[in-house]
Amino acid sequence: MKLRSGRLEKEMTDEAAEYTSSLEFDKIIFNADVKCNMAHTLMLKEENIIDSDIADHIIDALISLKDEGYNVLEFDPSVEDVHMAVENYVTNKIGPEAGFMHTAKSRNDQVATDIRLVLREKIREMQFNILDFISGIVDLAGEYKESVFIGFTHLQHAQPITVAHHLMAYAQSLKRDYQRLDDTYKRVNINPLGSAAMTTTSFPINRELTTRLLGFDSYMENSMDGVAARDFIAETVFDLTQLCTTLSKICEELVLWSTYEFGVITMADEYCSTSSIMPQKKNPDVAEVARSKATIANGELVTILTMLKALPYTYNRDLQELTPHLWNAIQNSYDTLEIVKHMLLSVKFNTDRCLDLASKNFATATDLADIMVRERKIPFRTAHKIVGRIVNEAISNGLSAEDITSVYVDDVAVELGFNKLNLGDDLVHTALNPLENVKMRNVPGGPSPKMVELARTNMISFVNNEVSLKKSFKD
Amino acid sequence: MKLRSGRLEKEMTDEAAEYTSSLEFDKIIFNADVKCNMAHTLMLKEENIIDSDIADHIIDALISLKDEGYNVLEFDPSVEDVHMAVENYVTNKIGPEAGFMHTAKSRNDQVATDIRLVLREKIREMQFNILDFISGIVDLAGEYKESVFIGFTHLQHAQPITVAHHLMAYAQSLKRDYQRLDDTYKRVNINPLGSAAMTTTSFPINRELTTRLLGFDSYMENSMDGVAARDFIAETVFDLTQLCTTLSKICEELVLWSTYEFGVITMADEYCSTSSIMPQKKNPDVAEVARSKATIANGELVTILTMLKALPYTYNRDLQELTPHLWNAIQNSYDTLEIVKHMLLSVKFNTDRCLDLASKNFATATDLADIMVRERKIPFRTAHKIVGRIVNEAISNGLSAEDITSVYVDDVAVELGFNKLNLGDDLVHTALNPLENVKMRNVPGGPSPKMVELARTNMISFVNNEVSLKKSFKD
Amino acid sequence: MKLRSGRLEKEMTDEAAEYTSSLEFDKIIFNADVKCNMAHTLMLKEENIIDSDIADHIIDALISLKDEGYNVLEFDPSVEDVHMAVENYVTNKIGPEAGFMHTAKSRNDQVATDIRLVLREKIREMQFNILDFISGIVDLAGEYKESVFIGFTHLQHAQPITVAHHLMAYAQSLKRDYQRLDDTYKRVNINPLGSAAMTTTSFPINRELTTRLLGFDSYMENSMDGVAARDFIAETVFDLTQLCTTLSKICEELVLWSTYEFGVITMADEYCSTSSIMPQKKNPDVAEVARSKATIANGELVTILTMLKALPYTYNRDLQELTPHLWNAIQNSYDTLEIVKHMLLSVKFNTDRCLDLASKNFATATDLADIMVRERKIPFRTAHKIVGRIVNEAISNGLSAEDITSVYVDDVAVELGFNKLNLGDDLVHTALNPLENVKMRNVPGGPSPKMVELARTNMISFVNNEVSLKKSFKD
Amino acid sequence: MKLRSGRLEKEMTDEAAEYTSSLEFDKIIFNADVKCNMAHTLMLKEENIIDSDIADHIIDALISLKDEGYNVLEFDPSVEDVHMAVENYVTNKIGPEAGFMHTAKSRNDQVATDIRLVLREKIREMQFNILDFISGIVDLAGEYKESVFIGFTHLQHAQPITVAHHLMAYAQSLKRDYQRLDDTYKRVNINPLGSAAMTTTSFPINRELTTRLLGFDSYMENSMDGVAARDFIAETVFDLTQLCTTLSKICEELVLWSTYEFGVITMADEYCSTSSIMPQKKNPDVAEVARSKATIANGELVTILTMLKALPYTYNRDLQELTPHLWNAIQNSYDTLEIVKHMLLSVKFNTDRCLDLASKNFATATDLADIMVRERKIPFRTAHKIVGRIVNEAISNGLSAEDITSVYVDDVAVELGFNKLNLGDDLVHTALNPLENVKMRNVPGGPSPKMVELARTNMISFVNNEVSLKKSFKD
Repeated sequence: MKLRSGRLEKEMTDEAAEYTSSLEFDKIIFNADVKCNMAHTLMLKEENIIDSDIADHIIDALISLKDEGYNVLEFDPSVEDVHMAVENYVTNKIGPEAGFMHTAKSRNDQVATDIRLVLREKIREMQFNILDFISGIVDLAGEYKESVFIGFTHLQHAQPITVAHHLMAYAQSLKRDYQRLDDTYKRVNINPLGSAAMTTTSFPINRELTTRLLGFDSYMENSMDGVAARDFIAETVFDLTQLCTTLSKICEELVLWSTYEFGVITMADEYCSTSSIMPQKKNPDVAEVARSKATIANGELVTILTMLKALPYTYNRDLQELTPHLWNAIQNSYDTLEIVKHMLLSVKFNTDRCLDLASKNFATATDLADIMVRERKIPFRTAHKIVGRIVNEAISNGLSAEDITSVYVDDVAVELGFNKLNLGDDLVHTALNPLENVKMRNVPGGPSPKMVELARTNMISFVNNEVSLKKSFKD
Repeated sequence: MKLRSGRLEKEMTDEAAEYTSSLEFDKIIFNADVKCNMAHTLMLKEENIIDSDIADHIIDALISLKDEGYNVLEFDPSVEDVHMAVENYVTNKIGPEAGFMHTAKSRNDQVATDIRLVLREKIREMQFNILDFISGIVDLAGEYKESVFIGFTHLQHAQPITVAHHLMAYAQSLKRDYQRLDDTYKRVNINPLGSAAMTTTSFPINRELTTRLLGFDSYMENSMDGVAARDFIAETVFDLTQLCTTLSKICEELVLWSTYEFGVITMADEYCSTSSIMPQKKNPDVAEVARSKATIANGELVTILTMLKALPYTYNRDLQELTPHLWNAIQNSYDTLEIVKHMLLSVKFNTDRCLDLASKNFATATDLADIMVRERKIPFRTAHKIVGRIVNEAISNGLSAEDITSVYVDDVAVELGFNKLNLGDDLVHTALNPLENVKMRNVPGGPSPKMVELARTNMISFVNNEVSLKKSFKD
Repeated sequence: MKLRSGRLEKEMTDEAAEYTSSLEFDKIIFNADVKCNMAHTLMLKEENIIDSDIADHIIDALISLKDEGYNVLEFDPSVEDVHMAVENYVTNKIGPEAGFMHTAKSRNDQVATDIRLVLREKIREMQFNILDFISGIVDLAGEYKESVFIGFTHLQHAQPITVAHHLMAYAQSLKRDYQRLDDTYKRVNINPLGSAAMTTTSFPINRELTTRLLGFDSYMENSMDGVAARDFIAETVFDLTQLCTTLSKICEELVLWSTYEFGVITMADEYCSTSSIMPQKKNPDVAEVARSKATIANGELVTILTMLKALPYTYNRDLQELTPHLWNAIQNSYDTLEIVKHMLLSVKFNTDRCLDLASKNFATATDLADIMVRERKIPFRTAHKIVGRIVNEAISNGLSAEDITSVYVDDVAVELGFNKLNLGDDLVHTALNPLENVKMRNVPGGPSPKMVELARTNMISFVNNEVSLKKSFKD
Repeated sequence: MKLRSGRLEKEMTDEAAEYTSSLEFDKIIFNADVKCNMAHTLMLKEENIIDSDIADHIIDALISLKDEGYNVLEFDPSVEDVHMAVENYVTNKIGPEAGFMHTAKSRNDQVATDIRLVLREKIREMQFNILDFISGIVDLAGEYKESVFIGFTHLQHAQPITVAHHLMAYAQSLKRDYQRLDDTYKRVNINPLGSAAMTTTSFPINRELTTRLLGFDSYMENSMDGVAARDFIAETVFDLTQLCTTLSKICEELVLWSTYEFGVITMADEYCSTSSIMPQKKNPDVAEVARSKATIANGELVTILTMLKALPYTYNRDLQELTPHLWNAIQNSYDTLEIVKHMLLSVKFNTDRCLDLASKNFATATDLADIMVRERKIPFRTAHKIVGRIVNEAISNGLSAEDITSVYVDDVAVELGFNKLNLGDDLVHTALNPLENVKMRNVPGGPSPKMVELARTNMISFVNNEVSLKKSFKD
């Protein structure tokens, strides 16, 4: 006799059973399910809801199961899911008393609890990996603090930066991706256990106790919400879209920078391929695949949001279908994070080319205008006009930044109807030389080596604090 | 020595190789890949591009491979994908002459060809299944031609229909889902082979011949487009979102109708479950899971559209990542179609309850107004006012539709300042009786049994024509 | 002469200027732009970067502009955006010295600052409205604490609840929607000002000062990140998808409950319509429109995520196109929240019908099993079998819950090979009576009137604390 | 007295009326609504359903309205939508007989008809614009038939092409975008009129006649499907995502090609901007904005798909909310198409730079291998090994393609253990010279000037045929 036949006279067809089965993904929640059963049984014992001896037998069986692992479970066609397989195991071990472990509990609250237990681990793993990536970036940036590079806006040369400053922008973005997961964790780490099927139970259960035993921060305050809420899943997957967006930005730049035209970096061979028909190629395959896979979280989020649209309370079987998309988004994001981390950290910047690009196209022109404002107190817009004319004429005449002298500046100023500025060649050259220029941008958040060093130090402190905080929590 | 080492000195790390591997999904294109190699080799032979004996050896080896099947292929870590595994097989069989089969061909055009070859089969399978579902619906509708039911707008009772008419609405929607795939098929069934890496080849290949051999309708007219175009993938997945939207509508109605409150249908036990804690339940799990899985195509479409955003020509490795989402959307949609088909066709309508609902709430009021317009030539809006008042008063006084008499109608008309209508009780009752009412709606597309029978006949013809058309094409 | 002609010889075509214009949405950031200019100018003055008198003139002009408002600005075709219009206003007021206000600032950091300033206000408005909705729900729940209702799983009758308990589930969901916005606020309220075009500036600006003046919590620690980061936009819109998902759930239930079949609520006439052709209808149009509009945030999120995919650093004009979708998502979500709030709070529950449904279908059967476990110490699964048989037989024999006696229970137990239970009729009836049943579920999070009252009290405290916290912050 | 009060005692609040109003978008369907009313009234007259004189009066009033235009309509708060405003206009003109025009018609079928009437016009407009763009591209390609350029795979140099060949790839992609709209048009151009509220009518209407009068291809064969089907909206918007994906690809390439690093094109000043702080910049703003706006259709599609998820039959007010997203997607896509067309067609290719890139990086190496295969009958893989070594050594030794001689080739071959090939310098140089190389790729779909000219001719024929076909249809 099937355990759950209830009022139905016929069983599901094999096709229907397979279609609705959650078994493929139940392996992921196995450990959590055992843990959840243990905590619940312990609570039932403590509150004298079930007999102390029976509780001990159940717990012993669960400990055996934990040791033996998932593969010891039997899944014949009558076993619908991991919850039932666990119960069968315990029943085989200790007999029908196993049934007591389901007192005051339902699969509805149990599966919600299991998912949250697993997810919080997955979130922490992701976070540790993000911190590891940030550390690596900070180290890499340390090698390029004075390596002048060109900064782009609109993919056009804008202003000189350093390679280090650019890399530290990645680190900042990853830091927010990390912090977002911290906030989501708060909404994941809430205990639905005790909600039972949807209305709690008439047994005098102790929800504070299971909350403490399972390491949750608090418990769900409404039992209907407890079994129906899945916003924590959507939120986690959203966080991953942002992490993946950061990663896709990095990949895009690596693809661009490794073109013949940019020539800014050399990718490690390990992350490239060549072509069966074009032996001369070195293709940034990993960056391309990662750029592409970085969109998977977006699609999974849409699936999840659409599944959740307009579902009435409380548990609907629709909800079961959310989790495979959660786990897939997590696995894919983790793998992408891991590979992009290794790939970026093995990149070599061609510093000569970087400097060369920074020296082109009057990328330092802004500062020449700024110097006019600062030293001669002329309005910014006036300075802009003068510099704009200088650049236009220089380009027409084939001059480069080094060719601009103080006299030249004054000639243009006078031509436009303004006074001479008498800046002197030193000031003009300081403004126009890329490295000097970068050093002058010495305000917090700026690219000057000093400021980037400060940013690196701050970031290392952040990483160290977070690691020790999270590790101490785990112990 | 690796075949493809080219200019790279180091090989991909295992992690990178695994991350970028397409092997998991290459099995799907294996048969197509062999077929494509055969057609290409035959063409090379016909055009005297490669030696006739060598070509025969290659083709013999490919025939062996086709017979032995996918599992005979060897995939050690140096084998990147199925194309290379196939080449290795042929090489092991006939020696280095195997290399000639890649003359004037690249993996870029080959993979595009393979995907199209497989996809067109998958589309046809889906289409046959849709036709099968339509047939089943037409049969089911045949059982309920005079079973009066209530039609809903805004989920409120609107007008009487029959169960058959409602079912035939599903069939119409599925018919368009079918036709959409026909249109997409045209854009799938175009041959990219010969595009080679992206610029065709300097060998005098015969693209008409491979097109004919592979059963394509035509070939891609620009080689860059040939290797880069993936709109046919997005389009197929979009078609599936529409099919799945139809299926989700059916599931939603089955869930609603099987509630205690609606009580309109009895679902077959095989598509329901009960609850471990609530033995009295009969839950429509399959319909819920299908409603949820019906959104997966939406998410996969978003992933695909996002992957395709702003990719420069021509082949980028990003493109490899599209196909797993295509295959997943197809498999999921096919399974959902199959199960929803079986589930719907096993539903029993509770015809008494259906009739009962149709008799409530003055759902026939519209026709009373129509009769006033038709028989007494008063404007529709005037009739509307009179009927509105009748219904309001009837509800206030607890009257039902059967209680309305011609005298009652006239009293209300006079009260509102209009003339008596003298419709007579027969006319009033004909309008207000649900079955009579349905029979009166005897225009094309209407719910009258006669019109639904016509619709069924037309639909059967359509299905039969399509089946014979597609089958003859396959032979 | 145009201010910004730079090196370009021709101006944008009107079509291109219109296509790329941000003016339609610039009105939204006008006040923030003025405020930002003021804070920046004040800082420039404090740090002696610009002349004190000039700074005062600029600030006076900005104050006038603030008073006169957006409509005083002139937008001829040469004015690209609100930043330029503001500058023109100040220039007209005080002459070319106005140019000094753009010292050490760029439109890139200014627009990022403006958006954040506006968004934090919008977030707070949304949050206050959520709190207001929660308050209303808590009040409404207070009217229905003992109104027994049926709880659904799989849209099938599951267990008795109260209307109040169901309503409080909405409140819990809204509370998380509120808290999510709190977390996002932290990532919005960071100051990018000082990043300038992308590399800060060589002027010795004081970023702490503008941060303080503008009420930001901190400043962006990398100037490239400062002008390029838009994850805060995606995150806000994601939060709205979750709020809207909560609202869509409420709308779905209102639509269902107002059907003839459910008959659980009466919607206020003000939120319904009737039909031009079917005068008897009362359609829940507002709930339907809201259910539909609740998906708009999903679409806007996809647009935003897709825009952000794989964009290289730093500012790209693509970013401009994000904000219209942000503002649209906010406006639409706010309007939907507002109308759903008013609609839900005007609903009348038909308590007789609610009780009637709770009395049907043995929804209390679980507790009969629980009582067997608790009182007679039999395993849960054994109790389940007995109760399952009781319910099956009762349904077959047309019995309802009130007809079940202790003797009947024992007959079934014996029939199944178990011992008599001797529960007594009192215990059996207490378990099976819906109101008694609800009262027994008296654990935290449960539906008993006592626990719901506790939940209401806790929620009121939460709302009051949040309101006073946020209001004090505003003062 | 309000026309539609029905059984409701209170009117919608202003807030609710505004929230649910469709008026903002009703202007778009105004002309269609008038046309639909005319056709319907004419049919009612022809079938003697309404009095001939009354019909004439109605039609005369509708003609006046058509002439006077939308702005003559009065929209006081009691007027819900354009259908009612039109009716009011006619009523004011001819009195209560106006009411007859709604005989056998409902807003449910009318709005579905109106949307289809408008949409088919919009689709044709879009299609004509695509054809116009294709024509422009064909012309532009004509200027660059022998302009050698480098083709990219993985954004790395792959093989030489011509600018013309690249441009013609765009044309092919646009051609499919055009054809997809043709297929969708078939599903748009079906007449739902006569479905009435959802069940047709008891009046003996002639659906063939209105179908013919309104220029539809056929009518909807099931009245419930007639009022509920909106898949044609989703399908249209999907088509636009594909068009926009093509446009985003073009924009991405323009942004890339106009970088300093690529330097391949000069954008017209009219589609660029400069910077307020960096006068040296020429930013491709229009391409960036278009790349960003090209994602809007994706988001609108998600909104539409989510709105349509799991909606039960038949008309639900949710459906009203679809159309604004349809119109927005169309307008945005049309504008983007228009501007990208103008922008691309004003681009100047820097042919020297194009040739220079094609001459770098041994992009012609494939053909050297092909020549070995063709002339010396060695397997492709052997040729690949030899050429791979040649390229590797050449790069190590700083040699370029012109430096490779027949003797050099043989030295490498022998070194690898193969025989000398004795290709001769002529053959080697023909293979390695980019222009000669391109000319050799003279198979259909290839980049040789001859084949591109053929492609241009075919495309012009296609465009001309389509234009004349569609224009003749309009007449």
